[in-house]
Amino acid sequence: MAKKGNMLIAQSGGPSMVINQSLIGAVVEAKKHAEIGKILGARHGIQGIMKEDFINLRKESAANLEAVANTPSSALGSIRKKPTAADCTKIFNVLKKNNVQYFFYIGGNDSAETAHIINEEAKAAKYDLRCFHIPKTIDNDLRQNDHTPGFGSAAKFVACAVAGDDLDNRALPGVKIDVIMGRHAGFLTAAAALCRTQPDDGPHLIYLPERPFDEKAFVRDVKAVYKKLGRCVIAVSEGIADKKGVAIAQKFTSEVDSHGNVQLSGSGALGDALAGVIKDKTKISRVRADTFGYLQRSFPGITSEVDAKEAREVGAFAVKTAVKSNTDGSIAIKRKPGKKYSVTYKRVMLRQVARDTRHVPDKFINKAGNNVTQSFIDYALPIVGKLPKIGHFKGVKA
Amino acid sequence: MAKKGNMLIAQSGGPSMVINQSLIGAVVEAKKHAEIGKILGARHGIQGIMKEDFINLRKESAANLEAVANTPSSALGSIRKKPTAADCTKIFNVLKKNNVQYFFYIGGNDSAETAHIINEEAKAAKYDLRCFHIPKTIDNDLRQNDHTPGFGSAAKFVACAVAGDDLDNRALPGVKIDVIMGRHAGFLTAAAALCRTQPDDGPHLIYLPERPFDEKAFVRDVKAVYKKLGRCVIAVSEGIADKKGVAIAQKFTSEVDSHGNVQLSGSGALGDALAGVIKDKTKISRVRADTFGYLQRSFPGITSEVDAKEAREVGAFAVKTAVKSNTDGSIAIKRKPGKKYSVTYKRVMLRQVARDTRHVPDKFINKAGNNVTQSFIDYALPIVGKLPKIGHFKGVKA
Repeated sequence: MAKKGNMLIAQSGGPSMVINQSLIGAVVEAKKHAEIGKILGARHGIQGIMKEDFINLRKESAANLEAVANTPSSALGSIRKKPTAADCTKIFNVLKKNNVQYFFYIGGNDSAETAHIINEEAKAAKYDLRCFHIPKTIDNDLRQNDHTPGFGSAAKFVACAVAGDDLDNRALPGVKIDVIMGRHAGFLTAAAALCRTQPDDGPHLIYLPERPFDEKAFVRDVKAVYKKLGRCVIAVSEGIADKKGVAIAQKFTSEVDSHGNVQLSGSGALGDALAGVIKDKTKISRVRADTFGYLQRSFPGITSEVDAKEAREVGAFAVKTAVKSNTDGSIAIKRKPGKKYSVTYKRVMLRQVARDTRHVPDKFINKAGNNVTQSFIDYALPIVGKLPKIGHFKGVKA
Repeated sequence: MAKKGNMLIAQSGGPSMVINQSLIGAVVEAKKHAEIGKILGARHGIQGIMKEDFINLRKESAANLEAVANTPSSALGSIRKKPTAADCTKIFNVLKKNNVQYFFYIGGNDSAETAHIINEEAKAAKYDLRCFHIPKTIDNDLRQNDHTPGFGSAAKFVACAVAGDDLDNRALPGVKIDVIMGRHAGFLTAAAALCRTQPDDGPHLIYLPERPFDEKAFVRDVKAVYKKLGRCVIAVSEGIADKKGVAIAQKFTSEVDSHGNVQLSGSGALGDALAGVIKDKTKISRVRADTFGYLQRSFPGITSEVDAKEAREVGAFAVKTAVKSNTDGSIAIKRKPGKKYSVTYKRVMLRQVARDTRHVPDKFINKAGNNVTQSFIDYALPIVGKLPKIGHFKGVKA
């Protein structure tokens, strides 16, 4: 039997629609194991740990746990902070003091890195910690994972938003640019294509950070679509960069976080700049840009059911694994081979997931670098689940 | 019995999530009346009429009509165009040539004005036309109406979006500005408040175009909320204007449509400018802005059921009225007195609805002019219908 100790869980990085599913999945699982004493939730990630700002998650009713599970964003609060060596010392002292033997940190690759650092420091200090990273990111950019919890729901939002916007653009034609989240990985932007059914459905052009963004090619692409259809809907990743790797958005902002990331979201600057390029370089009069912003990760009520279920299971699996074997790691989602979609969960090493980004593979991007392939659609649809049906008139000329 | 003739229907102005419900409501009703011969749909409003770009709506299957009814945006295409005298002559010639006796134009107050102009010209030309405006506007700003089809669904989108954004802001605190559609009327921005249940739920500040926007007061308001809660979520109408009536957004754009309206949507400029003001005038480091854009009027799959039902009934009622009595007008939604929400539909004069805007009444706005009252919530909730449940931890300190 595993040793008896307390559990501490926290959330980190950008929220998602299902990160609370992982949290509640872990808490509900923990309650089944006698090895786990207190179940503590730290407010705002490592900041809350350092301040011992904990809530007692055993005091939450089963009904309330379910209500929180079905609510977007990080119910414990989040943080974007890379711990310093001094922070780590503080964290260990708090963990020791509270007899925490089970530590779970839910987040993306920056959060995996944080968990990795804490774990390495724990090892160095010979502190016996079962330290697990639980994956979450709408960017879908964690290595070792077929996909990540949070992506399916954000992808559903983006697919619906662009489908609606495409209908809007059919009604009032022009050029429409939609800027979508994703710093270095274009999976979420690619998801803009998931509602396409008609040959002339938008988005007609999709630009991912995996391909260098060239302004001249962009203008040429837009002109060609506009000439053919009299309109053009474009999905652009906020993270597009030129061939030197400099983010296009960087020209319009200077704010950086403690991981060294430039602020891309929470501003309409990139979309407006791209709209300005089309206005300047073409004779098209109606050019608009929308930046989907934080709605992509926190809109309530349109969660992907598959995503919610997997997020829940990943949280539970982390706790089961931690109790079963004296180890550490991250939990990865693996897709089983075969026609019917199904997944398994697997423990992987923290350092295999930490920091680095998984990119959209070449097979998902068309040759011209301005759209996605059917292979991407086949990959993403099962994760996103049910999408709204779009009706069109047959339109018999009178 | 009414005279036999053909019917022509078209859509105009900004799309909504339920404008197709009104279209299909009218078409399905028309099919019940022997007085109506052909059912023609003009592509892109009066532009399609002038070009005789019609589709035969009798050729659409019942199933397809339903699929279109449940799809956002204007399935016939839309237009923002005020007809000139020459346009009107053209329109009459087309109507005469096609033996159109029943004409329905679905749209907002600009569209009602267009219908009114066409109708007056028809009268002057002694052309016997049953000309009806069918109301649609997410802005909820049509006179004579308790509320308008399209508002309930857009309001539901805004309420959900701000609720999710408020959860996001709880997780990663800072100042968050959400810019919401509504040129002269703030109903849709006011709807940002509809998901609030906890005392500290955002939006904490709401700025409508009905009150002059004062930058100093704005900064003071934000500072006060931030001091109290450590965060602040703000809903701002795209149409906010200074005390001289000059739109704040006008400083950042110069594009106007043929009704003389400045382009407010499809740009993040206002939100970014307001975020800049807070960054400059306070010491708050994390300030973000999102502009909800066209998603508010075209997002599929989250329609208000009440709104969809009423939009459908309004379309049907217009056709019934046109067939029953040789008259013209617009259809208005009236709320019945009493505790339980219910409505009736009433024919009103075109000129009573055309052009001018209905504003948010004083009783819906708080004294400080930076929030809405319970009276607004009571008014709007029945129109918006079911909203997602938000769960929060009880949060017992450990």
